[in-house]
Formats: sequence, structure tokens, C-alpha cells
Amino acid sequence: MNVYGEHYRTIWVKEDDPAVVQIIDQRHLPHKFVVEDLTTVDEVARAIQEMHVRGAGLIGATAGYGMYIAALHAPKDSVGAFMESLARAGGQLKATRPTAVNLAWAVERQLDAIEEAGGDPEARTRTAFDMAKVIADEDADFCRRIGEHGLAIIEEISRRKGGETVNILTHCNAGWLAFVDYGTATAPVYAAHDKGIKVHVWVDETRPRNQGARLTAWELGQHGVPHSVIADNVGGHLMQHGLVDMVIVGSDRTTYTGDVANKIGTYLKALAAADNDVPFYVALPSSTFDWKRRDGVAEIPIEQRDATEVRTINGLHEGEIVSVLLTPEESPAVNYAFDVTPAHLVTGLITERGVCEASEEGVLGLYPEKRAVVQG
Amino acid sequence: MNVYGEHYRTIWVKEDDPAVVQIIDQRHLPHKFVVEDLTTVDEVARAIQEMHVRGAGLIGATAGYGMYIAALHAPKDSVGAFMESLARAGGQLKATRPTAVNLAWAVERQLDAIEEAGGDPEARTRTAFDMAKVIADEDADFCRRIGEHGLAIIEEISRRKGGETVNILTHCNAGWLAFVDYGTATAPVYAAHDKGIKVHVWVDETRPRNQGARLTAWELGQHGVPHSVIADNVGGHLMQHGLVDMVIVGSDRTTYTGDVANKIGTYLKALAAADNDVPFYVALPSSTFDWKRRDGVAEIPIEQRDATEVRTINGLHEGEIVSVLLTPEESPAVNYAFDVTPAHLVTGLITERGVCEASEEGVLGLYPEKRAVVQG
Repeated sequence: MNVYGEHYRTIWVKEDDPAVVQIIDQRHLPHKFVVEDLTTVDEVARAIQEMHVRGAGLIGATAGYGMYIAALHAPKDSVGAFMESLARAGGQLKATRPTAVNLAWAVERQLDAIEEAGGDPEARTRTAFDMAKVIADEDADFCRRIGEHGLAIIEEISRRKGGETVNILTHCNAGWLAFVDYGTATAPVYAAHDKGIKVHVWVDETRPRNQGARLTAWELGQHGVPHSVIADNVGGHLMQHGLVDMVIVGSDRTTYTGDVANKIGTYLKALAAADNDVPFYVALPSSTFDWKRRDGVAEIPIEQRDATEVRTINGLHEGEIVSVLLTPEESPAVNYAFDVTPAHLVTGLITERGVCEASEEGVLGLYPEKRAVVQG
Repeated sequence: MNVYGEHYRTIWVKEDDPAVVQIIDQRHLPHKFVVEDLTTVDEVARAIQEMHVRGAGLIGATAGYGMYIAALHAPKDSVGAFMESLARAGGQLKATRPTAVNLAWAVERQLDAIEEAGGDPEARTRTAFDMAKVIADEDADFCRRIGEHGLAIIEEISRRKGGETVNILTHCNAGWLAFVDYGTATAPVYAAHDKGIKVHVWVDETRPRNQGARLTAWELGQHGVPHSVIADNVGGHLMQHGLVDMVIVGSDRTTYTGDVANKIGTYLKALAAADNDVPFYVALPSSTFDWKRRDGVAEIPIEQRDATEVRTINGLHEGEIVSVLLTPEESPAVNYAFDVTPAHLVTGLITERGVCEASEEGVLGLYPEKRAVVQG
């Protein structure tokens, strides 16, 4: 997507130096646009661990490029020593965020590909480079396809409104910054905007970490998509007054029955959407499906994060990003990171294969090869 | 309620100098406890306008004392000049926050009482002092009675839970800081806590102005009531998991049919409460009823406030209260201050006369003298 009028992905190899991988250091957004060079496995590991990059797709792609960087620096005198060095790097990368499924998956995929392609360390390094690109391209391609499928829904609403602006509410950042390009929840929005359909996005600020106000607002603004930031409290009122035509959110994990774990507060918006007959869509690549769990509310474990995220907030003050205390010094806070929206509140799931009902039947209709896994 | 172990109201006459009215300058809470002296009508007007004091009940009480201060300083040589000066002061006070119903009401009540009691300017000044005290005491007394009626509900839940902690969620600040004492939504909580019933309050931070994180958390903490601050996004998840036994919120305006206008985001919590069979109560003095409007969502005008409240936030940084920017510099924001919760989502209204169903029948059952007004 565009940043200051130029096309960017969230991760890429430096144009004139293929030994350098570049990322956007997202910790400084929206206040500063900082591109960071990654040249060692330690730097890649730190970028993931300290959340210079975040979001399932981007973490996977970064790990993929991390394994390429590991290959660049691994000893080339014997295949054994080379592969041993890569295994060590993989372990280091996987340990940075142990619960990020895409991270381990990208590392394993690299190790398997390198082993399978064979050859000497130089050839294996070229394989690692190719596979890093495949992982990143696949991620972007899945998001692009989600955008196409979601576009049809927005086009239909636009037609029904006689070409008037389609108002779309989103929560958190399931944007291109969380993936390699396009994003999931934002992909249909970008596709519609790029096609000339009038859209406007209500951006939930998404306390406590404010990914909406910081990241979604920034990426929409950079790409020229009209949007307004709102407090998380506002969506219900907007829906009561016909000011929201559809909701699109991402998902951190979706049961094969259609229950959606996503950023805390998603469930409240789904309730308001149902109460006001506003369609509520979840956009997700199929890697997000949990093929083992039936009952999201009962079975999906919800991470509790540090109370500091609620008690304080970061913002720009006199040119510097500073943290300010919001609560009384003595007041405790509790910080659940996700909630689960039951399938019956979800109008449809937008996946890379198409749109389906948020139900076992709907999901397995699009992913019939998973029927055996689910019943196993 | 208690502050640093001492009992306070939100407004009082200075113990050793009855020409000085004192308030808590709430702009500094929760980071600093600042008591401010008010000795002129200008100071009172500024305190209301710049929100040193806020909340329907407290604004009314402050206007009441403002008229007493006006009387103190009005010319005493003729009743005409005295009353003229008072009328001017009343106009000045009423202009500070034109939409605050209690403000105009307190000013008019003072002018009527002073006129009716008659006498010379000195006698009239004593009347103004007495009436200021009556207005403040009535406010505190209404809240105390709301507390008693709500206490019965908490006691019942506590009994049902075998004395285990009763978890109560509240939104915004309908606490004693918004009134003269006790508050409305908090009054039952204080009554229960003071009686030794185990309670714990989930305090919605209440973006954008964070009245929950700043004020409700502070006053509960000062009074020793166990509580946890949460992002506004969290309540639905807590209710799904049985962690909320009841919701109590205040109201800015309630139709006689039971639709409740309250701080933005209240509606979302009401939806979650209904979805999870959690009782949802609204505590309000009868002055908050709107006897003219039937349909809250359609008829109650919702104030839009400055976008700066969404784009920035105040907090403590290195000992100073500073404002930080949360969004991209270029991103617009929209700031609706209230929403309306339809009566069917409200379990009951807790008023100074008792608890009733949120319906025309329920409300007129408690306030039969309003039947003529409603049908007129």
C-alpha cells in the first residue's frame, strides 16, 4: 500500500543490497515513519520480540527472512555445520513470541524446504532466499484474494445506496501493517477505494494498545482512504443511527464452527451489529482457523496482558513519544487481550477462497479437505 | 465519602469563613487533590464553565452556592438593586453551561426563594445561604436514598452467592464526585461496602474523557472499595465468563418510557448484559426524567464534542499533567458524547423513591403525579 505516495510492503529486501532486509519499525507509528535494516539473526529476533513488527502474517514473513539472513551468515564449509547453524537460528526466532503460530510455521517451512532442495550451503542459501520470498508473496496473495471476495460485498452495498459512501467500521488493526500487504479486514476496503467506490472507515481506536488509532488510521490515511477515528464506545450509537453499513474485522483464531477470537471489544461491536441489522464480516486467511476447537467462548484461552497497558498510554508530547499515567497510582487494572464473538453474530467469513457462513457447514464447504481433521 | 480517611462532600462552606465556598478542583484528579476557594461569582462561573466541577447534581449545588456568594457581594442599600444584582449573577451562572438543566433550575429556585422569603438584603442573603444548603442537602439525600434502594439488590445477589464478592460493572462517573455525596450508580456500592458486603467494581475507563479511570477509580479507591480499571472493550468478555454479577450506570436523561441516555458506550454494555443474563440497572434521581419524550433513540439529541478529546488524552508524565497525541496528525476523529439504551435492555431504574421497571407503567407507578404531564 502507499506511504507518502510510494508503494510499500511491510518487509522487503534492500534494493541495492540483498544482504539487508528492511522493515517498518512500527513502534514509532503513527508519529514517525522509520525504516529499519535487519542484517543479523539477533536483529531479526529483537524486531519480532520487541514488536517492531507485529501481526500474524508479518511475523511469519519476518521469520522467513530471518532464516534467509541466518543462511547468509551460517558457516559454508560443511552442510552439517550450515544446517546446525540454521537450526539454532530457528530455535532463537521461535522463542521470541512462543504463541505466534505463524512464526514456528515459517521457520519449519524454511528448514524443510532447505533440506528438501539439498545442494551445497550456497545453493541452500539461495533456497532460503526463494522460500522467504514465497512466504511473503503467499501472504500478500492471500490478502489480495480476501480483498477481491470482500470487494463484491462492498460493491453490492454501494449499488444499493446508489453510489453513496459506504461506511465500514473496523476494530484493531487487521491492516496491511499486520501482514505483508493489503491486510485482511482492510483488503476489501483498499480494493473498493482503488476501484473508485466511495468508502469511509470508522476506525475504533482499540484500547488499550490503540492499534486502530495508531496503525489503522495511519495506513488508511497514507493510502488516501477517508476515515474517522472514534472511541471504542461509539460504534453502537453509530449503528443505531444508520451510520454504519457493514463491519469488517480480522481474527486471531477462528474455530471451524465459526466462533471468532479477535481483539478485545470485537464481541461488543458484533452485538450492536446484530441489534441493528448491520452485516458483520470477519476477514481471515485460512491459516487462522483452529480445526480442533468447537466452542470458542468455552475453549479458546484468552491472554491476560500487563496492567500497565491499561493504566498508561503512549502518545506524542512536544515531538517525543512519551508514556502518561491515566489512572490513580494505586488503582489496579485488568487487561484481557481478546474476546470471542459467537458464530451466530457473524454474517460471514471472508477467506482467500471466498465468503462462507460462520458455521461448521460453511467453513468445511470452502475447506472440504479439513473434514477428516475435524472429525478425527 | 472519604478522601485520605476524612469525610468530604464535593462542595461546602469553609469552616472558619462562611464567605468562602470550597470545592474539589476535579481537573487535577486522580493525580492531585486540590481544594479550591470560591469567593466571587466570577470564580464560581469559571469553576462550572471550565469543569473544575461537573456532574448534574454538583453543578446544581455549585450554582446554588454561587447565588449565595452573589448575595454576599450584592449592594445592600436597596432591595431593588440587590435583586437586580442577583438576577445578573443568575444570568452569568446559567450561561456557563447552557444545556445543564440543574444549573438553571438551581438559579431559579434561589431567586424564587429569596423573593418569596422577602425581607431586607441581609435577610435575603441569609435565605440564599439556607437555600444553597437545602439544594446541596437534597441532592445528597436523594443519592443516599438511591443507595438504600440499590443496596437491597446487591444484598440479594450477595445472599445468592453465599457471601462471595459481588462484581459490579459501571461506566463513566456517576459517583459522589458528580453529585454532592454518595453519587447515583456508586451509592448502592458505597452502601453495600459500608455494610460489610463484599463488593468489587469493574471500572470502565470511559474514553474519550476517561471519567471512569480518572474519577470513579479515584473515589472508590479513596473510600476503600476494591475495584479494577478496565478498557471499555472488556465488559462483554467479563460477562461471557460470569465475572459480572450486575451493571449499574447513571443517566444524563431518561424518557418516562425508560430509554436511558448516558455516556457513550453504555448501550454496548447493556447489549452484553442482555446477551449474558446480567442484570442492568440505571440509578438516577427523578430530576433526570424527561417527561416529554417517548422514544429516546429517535428523540434525544446527542451532543457532538470536540475531536481533540479523541485525538489526544491527558495523563501524568514526570509529575506534570500533559496532553499527548494518540492519532496521526492528519486523521480526523468524531466524538459523540452520549448514546441511548432502549428500555427493553434495562432491568430496572433505581430512583430516590424506589426501584421500578424501565417502562412508562413502571415510572408512572413511582411518580403518579406526572401522569397528567405525560398525557398533556
